[in-house]
Amino acid sequence: MEPIEVKREIIRYGNGLAERIEDSIVTEHPVTIKINGTEFATLVCSPDYIEDLVTGFLASEGVIRKYDELEDVWIDGKSGTAHVKTKKLNPYYLNFQGKRYITSCCGAGRQGFVFINDALTAKKMDRVRVKISTRDCFSLMSEMQESSTVFQNTGGVHNAALCQEGKVVISRMDIGRHNALDKIYGYCLKNNIPLTDKILAFSGRISAEILLKASKIGCEIVLSKSAPTALALKLAEDLGITTIGFVRNDSLNVYTGQERVVLG
Amino acid sequence: MEPIEVKREIIRYGNGLAERIEDSIVTEHPVTIKINGTEFATLVCSPDYIEDLVTGFLASEGVIRKYDELEDVWIDGKSGTAHVKTKKLNPYYLNFQGKRYITSCCGAGRQGFVFINDALTAKKMDRVRVKISTRDCFSLMSEMQESSTVFQNTGGVHNAALCQEGKVVISRMDIGRHNALDKIYGYCLKNNIPLTDKILAFSGRISAEILLKASKIGCEIVLSKSAPTALALKLAEDLGITTIGFVRNDSLNVYTGQERVVLG
Repeated sequence: MEPIEVKREIIRYGNGLAERIEDSIVTEHPVTIKINGTEFATLVCSPDYIEDLVTGFLASEGVIRKYDELEDVWIDGKSGTAHVKTKKLNPYYLNFQGKRYITSCCGAGRQGFVFINDALTAKKMDRVRVKISTRDCFSLMSEMQESSTVFQNTGGVHNAALCQEGKVVISRMDIGRHNALDKIYGYCLKNNIPLTDKILAFSGRISAEILLKASKIGCEIVLSKSAPTALALKLAEDLGITTIGFVRNDSLNVYTGQERVVLG
Repeated sequence: MEPIEVKREIIRYGNGLAERIEDSIVTEHPVTIKINGTEFATLVCSPDYIEDLVTGFLASEGVIRKYDELEDVWIDGKSGTAHVKTKKLNPYYLNFQGKRYITSCCGAGRQGFVFINDALTAKKMDRVRVKISTRDCFSLMSEMQESSTVFQNTGGVHNAALCQEGKVVISRMDIGRHNALDKIYGYCLKNNIPLTDKILAFSGRISAEILLKASKIGCEIVLSKSAPTALALKLAEDLGITTIGFVRNDSLNVYTGQERVVLG
């Protein structure tokens, strides 16, 4: 498997002066998923937690519905292949195979929100089980960003953190926004972590697809450093999820589900 | 067709105070491309310049090789469908149909750099026909960002600008990084703009796929506000493209092709 970042000599120009320095650059790594021997999809990712990524991706796309439907996941780092064996192929799989969806890279790409799988797997948060103070919004966001050494070194990845009770439970990074969430989702499924009462902190924009992934992971609250889309907010309202964006320095925007936000 | 941004009442919290304000939110719009009646792919995008987006996407993916291979592109805004009629389907099309590639959203997704189409359509810049001063790097980046009212209003889109001789020629925005470039590519093809001697200014990261798209548009220089990936830099070296990243305030990094960069 490739390293996540590599060193490279570059020319940095600032204050009218140019100097040759060594910099860290993030890598891209294609992983082709084969399901029971048949090529299914290729993800391009930062090469860590590949097994979790593949698991989370397949669950998120509705190809598996439970972790124990996976018989084996074997990563061949050399060829960049994830060999997946499943006990059964659920009907979604065929559905998925029949169509191609291309992500906007910042929209609701891949399988997409408009399709039946998401309608079936997204969870409605019909009660307020979790609240968050504005203070925790800022501290969780900082904790997530500061814990990501790859982000500190390269500035080239997105970060996501699953939080509970004012603390980061796990955090993952990836060059792909969706991948960072799939790595978290896969980890939770593998380790049987209850998919309820969670808060997601995220460095990227809240598109419809990101919102749906967060709902599958059991997040009642989604915090982002960046902007939401209108469709994500509509889905957040439908699913009863609190969305908070532009969490920067000491300000933030509450878009939906304000009943979970406590000032101070 | 949907609007590109919508108004929404939100709660803004800052300096310890919360207030209810009206904010602008960017929309997401799925467009399904049908080629000669058969569903091909769904893009999720900001709903402007859809015809250019579709044209640029099909050219970038190698489905068409020249603009005049398109017989008709008709956008049905209501159903979100782009009906494309082609004079012929070139062999790439079948190749593309046979495989699914999932973008990292920030990596080399979609068709991807690892595949033959890109190797055949990417252009090698074997001469220095264009140079750029550090001053122009800063001014082009500012001009691009300031010209994007959607970005100013929502903070939720990426911007791309095709530049020549120190000036922005055209600029496009989209919620999807790749889409912004495809809109530019489609515009150039339709309007017969020579795909040489160009400079690309871009708000997003320089992944391998972005780099390849820039090469297809004829850019010798790629400027970004953000980070490159290692694979993008390898491709930039192979293709003879100058890459400049983290163009912010008064500093920038030159990664490849420094012979095109003039201090001052």
